[in-house]
Amino acid sequence: MQKKHLWLSLVLTLAVIAAMIGCATPDATTTPESTSAVTDDSSAQAKYVFLFIGDGMGVAQRNAAELYLAATSDVERPEDVQLLMNTFPAQGMNTTYDLTSVIPDSASTATAIATGYKTTSGTIGMNADGTESYETITEIAKKAGWEVGVISTVSIDHATPAAFYAHEPSRSNYYNIDLTLANSDFDYFAGGGVKREFGDDGSQSSVIELAEQNGYTVADTIEEFNAISADDEKVWAINPVLDADKAMPFDILNEENSLTLADFVSKGIEVLDNETGFIMVVEGGKIDWACHANDAAASIGDTLALDDAINVAYQFYLEHPDETLIIATADHETGGMTIGYAGTQYSTFFDKIQYQTSTYDTFGTVLDAYKENHTPENADLNDLADEIEAAFGLKIISAEERASLTAQAEAGDADAETTLSMALTELELAEVQAGFEQSMLDEELRAADDYTYLLYGGYDPLTMKLTTILNQKAGIAWTSYSHTGIPVQTSAIGVGADLFNGYYDQTDIFYTMTDIAGL
Amino acid sequence: MQKKHLWLSLVLTLAVIAAMIGCATPDATTTPESTSAVTDDSSAQAKYVFLFIGDGMGVAQRNAAELYLAATSDVERPEDVQLLMNTFPAQGMNTTYDLTSVIPDSASTATAIATGYKTTSGTIGMNADGTESYETITEIAKKAGWEVGVISTVSIDHATPAAFYAHEPSRSNYYNIDLTLANSDFDYFAGGGVKREFGDDGSQSSVIELAEQNGYTVADTIEEFNAISADDEKVWAINPVLDADKAMPFDILNEENSLTLADFVSKGIEVLDNETGFIMVVEGGKIDWACHANDAAASIGDTLALDDAINVAYQFYLEHPDETLIIATADHETGGMTIGYAGTQYSTFFDKIQYQTSTYDTFGTVLDAYKENHTPENADLNDLADEIEAAFGLKIISAEERASLTAQAEAGDADAETTLSMALTELELAEVQAGFEQSMLDEELRAADDYTYLLYGGYDPLTMKLTTILNQKAGIAWTSYSHTGIPVQTSAIGVGADLFNGYYDQTDIFYTMTDIAGL
Repeated sequence: MQKKHLWLSLVLTLAVIAAMIGCATPDATTTPESTSAVTDDSSAQAKYVFLFIGDGMGVAQRNAAELYLAATSDVERPEDVQLLMNTFPAQGMNTTYDLTSVIPDSASTATAIATGYKTTSGTIGMNADGTESYETITEIAKKAGWEVGVISTVSIDHATPAAFYAHEPSRSNYYNIDLTLANSDFDYFAGGGVKREFGDDGSQSSVIELAEQNGYTVADTIEEFNAISADDEKVWAINPVLDADKAMPFDILNEENSLTLADFVSKGIEVLDNETGFIMVVEGGKIDWACHANDAAASIGDTLALDDAINVAYQFYLEHPDETLIIATADHETGGMTIGYAGTQYSTFFDKIQYQTSTYDTFGTVLDAYKENHTPENADLNDLADEIEAAFGLKIISAEERASLTAQAEAGDADAETTLSMALTELELAEVQAGFEQSMLDEELRAADDYTYLLYGGYDPLTMKLTTILNQKAGIAWTSYSHTGIPVQTSAIGVGADLFNGYYDQTDIFYTMTDIAGL
Repeated sequence: MQKKHLWLSLVLTLAVIAAMIGCATPDATTTPESTSAVTDDSSAQAKYVFLFIGDGMGVAQRNAAELYLAATSDVERPEDVQLLMNTFPAQGMNTTYDLTSVIPDSASTATAIATGYKTTSGTIGMNADGTESYETITEIAKKAGWEVGVISTVSIDHATPAAFYAHEPSRSNYYNIDLTLANSDFDYFAGGGVKREFGDDGSQSSVIELAEQNGYTVADTIEEFNAISADDEKVWAINPVLDADKAMPFDILNEENSLTLADFVSKGIEVLDNETGFIMVVEGGKIDWACHANDAAASIGDTLALDDAINVAYQFYLEHPDETLIIATADHETGGMTIGYAGTQYSTFFDKIQYQTSTYDTFGTVLDAYKENHTPENADLNDLADEIEAAFGLKIISAEERASLTAQAEAGDADAETTLSMALTELELAEVQAGFEQSMLDEELRAADDYTYLLYGGYDPLTMKLTTILNQKAGIAWTSYSHTGIPVQTSAIGVGADLFNGYYDQTDIFYTMTDIAGL
């Protein structure tokens, strides 16, 4: 992960300076901006609404991204760096429980935000038994003559984006969801692709062709994307690079031909901007995937990418401060991430995260290649030492090297200390070796007991241990491979933003948004 | 833990009803109360300031207490139950980093809140090299003619309370801190005792006698406490029941002769109330201790006790809404608590926490008694089965019993299912057995490697495994035995409360408080 986000510190510094001289920039480190003049005037309404959802992005995920920026920049103090969304004047906390559990899923929580109704895990825009559809804020906006956009880094038929345009008793009804998208009258879809273009069995008609028949301009190359303009009535922009799940690649991978979430928001503004109003829903969907896999680097990268996308909306807000509302929330937390680990006690070393260049899902290709030429019997972890260091910065060293480096470090050799800090300890090496041995086995031969699940969560054992250990060395730890029930942060700036202060339930986000937008 | 806090739900329900009919009660589940009329009037100032600090009480600790209330009451939905502090109209988030680390300690963080200055871990009210003292808000208030009170559930010379009246380069300078207390002119000290009444070597003069010579009425029995009145000039009230560290017992222990934190706040209002103004600092100090030991039940109990104490201040606020400010914050988070555990995935079972009647520190007496008559060689975990079930609700069952109960549960026997849900699984039993074997060894013979620290954190191994497993069965997990660096929640109600909205650093709490109080 490189320091490409460092400009953010500069932007923030400039924002703080601007706030000090009285410009309309947020600066939550001092007195929150008062929007009372706006909220006291009941006629003031937002006609441009941006709703950003970091899937799985809890307080810890935001904080980790901030601490990563602080650790890899030369700011004096960690509290001097804030994500743009954390500088917004309104910062509420909200509960995310659904009708199934205190620990909800993305379908029910997106439904709660989109419709104001709680439902069961797995349900999209309907009641618990799938007999009643709930109208979404995007549908309401469309009826009111607004333009509507839905963007996600994961496939556009995934639970979170789907809950803004579809109504299905199961989030897995992808082809139905895709058909709804193609037949919707929404103005802009962008980001990932679709999971079932040709139906579950691949034999049905293409939903992308259907969308084109319905008047959508579909773009899935950089050239086509660049050619999209405000003249296009309805647009469906698909990222030129997609992973096996039809999602955009993780931001830290810096894929050459990939667009960014910020690019899609920027283009969205161009397509949607009109005099009546628009609402744009933007999901950072792979923060959740990273956190399921307890991969802090991937989570941080995509959180920063989401913040970059928010900055595009923020620039629009600066031009239309009296008509714009930006909300940045999360559907739930994922992974039980914390900023502290028993092994590192009172210390953190967030700079170590920058050495990770691969992610939990891309490192698998390295392992697959190795397995083609090796069996469990002739496999040797040391064969992969270079690849492991390239992907995670972690060094495999022998007992002798460790003893020698320790002696040098104790004698004051800073280089030896740095090397040692990224070297696997004896305990870590044993854990990695155990993971490697599991990874070398065919999946059906691997241990499948409860303890093994606690260790690897169903992910590739070697990759899981490598990411976990890098996290722990940085001072980041996790408690789950699932979502958690802890309340999440909701930030807002613009018309009526004050109303997002406080501690409330997720469903209130819908009511507050519609209220402020007069929908 | 019994359901003694259930009244809270009722209070909250009444508060919601009252808010619906327009009374001055907080209801954060709907539109946050607007205090803009107050903040717009720059002459409005608080003259009664309550500052509550939950030591180690992060977002997760508050949420766990709420979910516990919801699970042990008959409310329909978990989001229907809120802590009183979570209903306050202003809810900010703040960073807690100190000059030593992103993960701070209680001395530096209390100094930040009390003085507005960051310092190093372990330092009380001074700069990093201990050459300069910082004036505290309580000292400033005293100079302005206000009355001042400091209350804590832990010893009153512990870092957090000490940072409001003492200035020491080390938080361990207890006798110096005690002398400062006795020679201070503060009006009310209450809660725990002092750690070094007679100095480090026990040979120095009693600080309690010194305080009495200085005009303090010292009360350390229920009768003396009840006799305290507004007529007493300066009061030092010490809880009649103290633990080995001179702290009040954990709330869940329901010690018969113990006063509650709410009692001390109530008495404090009586002692401090005057026309000029007062500030009362109240620490729930053992939330932190519970969380260091990863003991969720003890943490939840003391969080609820803090909320009860806040309710006493809230009743005062209702009588003086235009002159009172109540703040409820935390110095930092402890333990890396999360509301979710890999083993329970998407489920939580918070009702299981109610079966815990002991705490991490009191269960030790059971073990000590057993060790008097047993050696590691003849020790048998089954001997302690009844004590373990009485203290933690956890059942030790044989493989045959497990098989039989499983069959009954699968056949629909609800009782068997309940029994099974509190029985140790095979994996859990192995972990408890390993902890038991370590606990039976003299401390110097126990394993002392890194892995053992990760397992037990330096606490009694058996007790640690029992609390951890009960937590995990409930769906609560932890990542550390130390503090963490994650931002904490700051809630406020009353004059100027709006200013506590937003995302800011801990030091801002000092500036905002002094600003609102005109100090």
